[in-house]
Amino acid sequence: MAGNTFGKQFRITTWGESHGKAIGVVVDGVPAELPISESDIQAFLDRRKPGSTRYSTPRKEADAVQILSGVFEGRATGTPISLLIPNTSQRSSDYSEIASYYRPGHADYTYDMKYGFRDYRGGGRSSGRETAGRVAAGAIASLFLKQLGIRVCAYTRSIGPISCEDFCQEEISRNPLCMPDADAAARAQDYLDACMKQFDSSGGVVECFADGVPAGLGDPVFDKLDAALAGAVMSIGAVKAVEIGDGTAVSRARGSENNDPFRMRDGHVEKETNHAGGILGGISDGSRILLRAHIKPTASIFSDQQTVNRNGENITIRIKGRHDPVIVPRAVVVVESMTSLVLADALLSNMTARLDRIREFYKV
Amino acid sequence: MAGNTFGKQFRITTWGESHGKAIGVVVDGVPAELPISESDIQAFLDRRKPGSTRYSTPRKEADAVQILSGVFEGRATGTPISLLIPNTSQRSSDYSEIASYYRPGHADYTYDMKYGFRDYRGGGRSSGRETAGRVAAGAIASLFLKQLGIRVCAYTRSIGPISCEDFCQEEISRNPLCMPDADAAARAQDYLDACMKQFDSSGGVVECFADGVPAGLGDPVFDKLDAALAGAVMSIGAVKAVEIGDGTAVSRARGSENNDPFRMRDGHVEKETNHAGGILGGISDGSRILLRAHIKPTASIFSDQQTVNRNGENITIRIKGRHDPVIVPRAVVVVESMTSLVLADALLSNMTARLDRIREFYKV
Amino acid sequence: MAGNTFGKQFRITTWGESHGKAIGVVVDGVPAELPISESDIQAFLDRRKPGSTRYSTPRKEADAVQILSGVFEGRATGTPISLLIPNTSQRSSDYSEIASYYRPGHADYTYDMKYGFRDYRGGGRSSGRETAGRVAAGAIASLFLKQLGIRVCAYTRSIGPISCEDFCQEEISRNPLCMPDADAAARAQDYLDACMKQFDSSGGVVECFADGVPAGLGDPVFDKLDAALAGAVMSIGAVKAVEIGDGTAVSRARGSENNDPFRMRDGHVEKETNHAGGILGGISDGSRILLRAHIKPTASIFSDQQTVNRNGENITIRIKGRHDPVIVPRAVVVVESMTSLVLADALLSNMTARLDRIREFYKV
Amino acid sequence: MAGNTFGKQFRITTWGESHGKAIGVVVDGVPAELPISESDIQAFLDRRKPGSTRYSTPRKEADAVQILSGVFEGRATGTPISLLIPNTSQRSSDYSEIASYYRPGHADYTYDMKYGFRDYRGGGRSSGRETAGRVAAGAIASLFLKQLGIRVCAYTRSIGPISCEDFCQEEISRNPLCMPDADAAARAQDYLDACMKQFDSSGGVVECFADGVPAGLGDPVFDKLDAALAGAVMSIGAVKAVEIGDGTAVSRARGSENNDPFRMRDGHVEKETNHAGGILGGISDGSRILLRAHIKPTASIFSDQQTVNRNGENITIRIKGRHDPVIVPRAVVVVESMTSLVLADALLSNMTARLDRIREFYKV
Repeated sequence: MAGNTFGKQFRITTWGESHGKAIGVVVDGVPAELPISESDIQAFLDRRKPGSTRYSTPRKEADAVQILSGVFEGRATGTPISLLIPNTSQRSSDYSEIASYYRPGHADYTYDMKYGFRDYRGGGRSSGRETAGRVAAGAIASLFLKQLGIRVCAYTRSIGPISCEDFCQEEISRNPLCMPDADAAARAQDYLDACMKQFDSSGGVVECFADGVPAGLGDPVFDKLDAALAGAVMSIGAVKAVEIGDGTAVSRARGSENNDPFRMRDGHVEKETNHAGGILGGISDGSRILLRAHIKPTASIFSDQQTVNRNGENITIRIKGRHDPVIVPRAVVVVESMTSLVLADALLSNMTARLDRIREFYKV
Repeated sequence: MAGNTFGKQFRITTWGESHGKAIGVVVDGVPAELPISESDIQAFLDRRKPGSTRYSTPRKEADAVQILSGVFEGRATGTPISLLIPNTSQRSSDYSEIASYYRPGHADYTYDMKYGFRDYRGGGRSSGRETAGRVAAGAIASLFLKQLGIRVCAYTRSIGPISCEDFCQEEISRNPLCMPDADAAARAQDYLDACMKQFDSSGGVVECFADGVPAGLGDPVFDKLDAALAGAVMSIGAVKAVEIGDGTAVSRARGSENNDPFRMRDGHVEKETNHAGGILGGISDGSRILLRAHIKPTASIFSDQQTVNRNGENITIRIKGRHDPVIVPRAVVVVESMTSLVLADALLSNMTARLDRIREFYKV
Repeated sequence: MAGNTFGKQFRITTWGESHGKAIGVVVDGVPAELPISESDIQAFLDRRKPGSTRYSTPRKEADAVQILSGVFEGRATGTPISLLIPNTSQRSSDYSEIASYYRPGHADYTYDMKYGFRDYRGGGRSSGRETAGRVAAGAIASLFLKQLGIRVCAYTRSIGPISCEDFCQEEISRNPLCMPDADAAARAQDYLDACMKQFDSSGGVVECFADGVPAGLGDPVFDKLDAALAGAVMSIGAVKAVEIGDGTAVSRARGSENNDPFRMRDGHVEKETNHAGGILGGISDGSRILLRAHIKPTASIFSDQQTVNRNGENITIRIKGRHDPVIVPRAVVVVESMTSLVLADALLSNMTARLDRIREFYKV
Repeated sequence: MAGNTFGKQFRITTWGESHGKAIGVVVDGVPAELPISESDIQAFLDRRKPGSTRYSTPRKEADAVQILSGVFEGRATGTPISLLIPNTSQRSSDYSEIASYYRPGHADYTYDMKYGFRDYRGGGRSSGRETAGRVAAGAIASLFLKQLGIRVCAYTRSIGPISCEDFCQEEISRNPLCMPDADAAARAQDYLDACMKQFDSSGGVVECFADGVPAGLGDPVFDKLDAALAGAVMSIGAVKAVEIGDGTAVSRARGSENNDPFRMRDGHVEKETNHAGGILGGISDGSRILLRAHIKPTASIFSDQQTVNRNGENITIRIKGRHDPVIVPRAVVVVESMTSLVLADALLSNMTARLDRIREFYKV
């Protein structure tokens, strides 16, 4: 039943509930000597911090991370790095009512079925707050990837029916929706305002790419790079579909359209197109890794809903409290983090693939 | 780098290349006393066997499975079950040319990058033939699920632009495309015939559902049921997207549309709709589990393609040999198998979730 | 390289260095509804706490544990339980000298070889302090075992040449050496006093038994119960040998002496003797589980020692600071904890062994 | 319950019963390009083959290994290597009686308790024959270690009360007991002859060392090198104790005796003594790795024994069939194999420990 550890060599274990004392993560397998500071990690956490715009819950969390172990004189020691983020804003009273019934679209019912009871305060472990641990760990993975020349970047691709048509890297951090297209972001804000007026919420799509990934990552046949990415991204609450490269479009494509021709360029093998999203046969091919996560609308909406309570009675509820009208912008850094964690793990796993490289490593 | 083991408690290890002596799987963790026969497994393998229709490669493989261990007097002993399928049709000569270049859409290049060289005969380990091991194991998982009243069923949802509009269970085994809609199947065959005439291939979608799955399966936060299913299905070669329930559609939906209301029915909690595909917070909710796999068109097409060879020269190739114009119908049983394996594993994992049930089990 | 997670279903991840901010553990897979309080865990930690007798370092550590997650209203929720123990006594100045050389019998040299540098304060992660996390987790495992009628008990079997000849359960907690034989304890104290006068240290043996363990635990062939116990106990720093049952004596025994005859007693199968230590073929047989851990003398001694420094020069050193003259009494609860963790994990794993029990569990 | 997979990166999965069709192993994670031939593996298997001397069962097994996958043109491809050894001598009739009762010292009772029934033919999976899979895999591990300049060597240290006093490498393969001391071997043979005359059996000790192991292997705190070795060796049937270095003797030693002083020699750090057996803090220190396995006397003896049958009746039995009077000589290559597998795995794991080495590897 233990399911809170992720990764094989770059391995994280997250813990913590929405309204417990703290939330955190242990990151094991971080290569020694990697420079790490609390501010590096804080910068990642700030990207998912609530309360910064009118599209995220007004709950105020400092989300201030502490490094408790595994870093000495500013560098990783190779021993587990324990990160802790105190929970400071715990208005449990808001949630007392929830204990008695099952909110539609939430995990209240399934947690009760599995465990017999649950920490009902703010969703407990099933809260989006759980992802703070992933992001803190993702920050460390990201520091490691940078050392190897790899850059991972996620952003909002669409909000409800509004999709980006342009890509401007700088724009991502300029608008509250993390969209790389200022015009789309403006229209998406209008759309969200309309949703909120109707006490409703919206879904959307997060897209993520990784540049600089060497060819060779991924371990067929079950630990293929795309399989690992799909499992990692689908493990984020609210994600209901994962696409690699052209994704769902491949089912309508023909082979002549979908195959990416290889060509020599400057003495290197390259692909002329990248329908495959940088992965062939479950192994990275050296081109851009590309994936998309489809995220459902926030389950907590403020209109009347039908449900049942723990006594088995049909009831009508109206959810109160503090909730984002859209999860997508705060999920951007979570998708980026999970992608970074998968890539970091795959980079380490791949080092053992070839005898000649191992002999070279051990200077034999 | 070892990536050929899948599952935690119901655990399989597959092995074998397209043109080696045999292909096989070791299934570990099968509960003792489960009735198993070679014919049960053979029935599954026959569903992916090539050569039965004009839409699959004319390569003739008996795909006759042998049980080498772990079954005694017709029942599982609790020890590992080794299954072996001899390769009988190995026309390696067909593949000699492939050794020198990289076929677009195939794993030739990435295997060379990772391992330094490869078994180039028929794609070696990256061949679709690898899935025979998954299917043989999936047959055993399916036998186990049946004992618990669970039924898993996969079928072709679409071929290229042709989608099923109807669902007739019996029809699935009646047409060569495994579609549950006879009319769609007829139109899809016309579409495929056109593809073949143009030396081209088609993608498609496999859909899979599971009925009778109890609420409570899946282990948050990384081994959620949907995360496990996504990783498992994405590990199948040629799958480029995985959807759970409404899948990609959730990104355009509103919360009021996407939330499934709970209602009491005959004393049980049920959901009025199932946009979630039977999984909430990563845990099964007792309703139908539903997923879709988007499969790319066969990479081996018979028209001219641009690529490079191992000497780093740009060349034009024309692939010969025996290849399916569409992978989808043969992938149906593979998707069903991976789904069954995930569910079997989740059923076993879930047994340890609650103290009262454990005490009951150990009669304390 | 990640090696700080132990167990499959009852799974712990420990973290923390001797002189970092804190030390801790995440316990994942604890069955929901298990009653757990900080005082339960504190009682275990107090058993390894330094400073209570003249045979343990005068370093004063409150070792006060905090439960940060996974427990709600006094019971486990099934989500990961994070335990934190602040480090309060960190006289790092004591250790500044150690940074430059390699103490004999310590891990200074090997950590430098592996990681390139190390947290030299008090041994960092290789300090005995690391075991606090194991003991905190062991306390929870012990609570779980009690619910199933299993009792684990460890004690000092010998100190240097002084062995217990008697077994009095109550005596274990009465003398500072945790020996179940008051007379042996008195003689062992004399022996230790002599060691200390000579600036020397002593080894010893911890013995551990478990009563009430049902037959059937352990998963052949690599996760046998004895294999899991041996790996777990040998992972404790300073342990250099592990014995099960008669242990090393079996190598001099004959089959007619070593075989344990089965007999019926009160309608149950029992063994007349227990040379096997309760494990046959790697599976518990329902009789007492018995093991011994041989622990080396404290490496930190206060006489002159030959060694080398990081500049590759031969030097003579004299260690200062606070060190136990014998590790054994404080290791008692660590051995008990690792044994409890292995048994808890094996109990959970074993639930999936038989189809009939699984069907019963799922009420099919 | 699945327990037949061993290792993390160099990972094996064994399968097969004493009297099934075959026995085998899948070896996953073998670095590509490693030269491997069937004859290399056969040489290892021949060392444990029965029937060669009067101290091993007269059962004749060719134990002829076949490579079914993962090797192409004489080299590993990086994909799983499946090895199969047909069972050719299956006189099941010998074992029909065993089905009804529990042999003392055997796993008959515990397998029945765990699984509800068992393959009673020759012990099924609990037979020593299971180790053929380990040895076949160990042969491949050994080939890999040789490429890195590491040599693993095991031999019989003692038979019953007869211990080696001398060490002559060549002698190991000259006498049927695999003892490195010809005189001890002669006396041990006399001792065994006496045992056999009394229808009895003898235990003994296997010792194993590894030279050329670089410093740095092993992953604290749970996957320490000594913990991995102890778990691996204890998982071999009949092993009841494992010692590292001085082993049990450390419990009677003083710190001043047990600490190994470091000294510079030819510009390298060396230890003047090796009480630690080459492992400090769970990490290899560059000196010889040394371990001992204590093996119980063969449980199958030919004198009368008391036991119970499956009907719960006390009975007296007399075992017939073919059995070794001592397990030790045939266990030598099994201990060597498990040691090699642990070292191979640790070598691969260790490659990810340091950022500078990883950057070097990826040429960044």
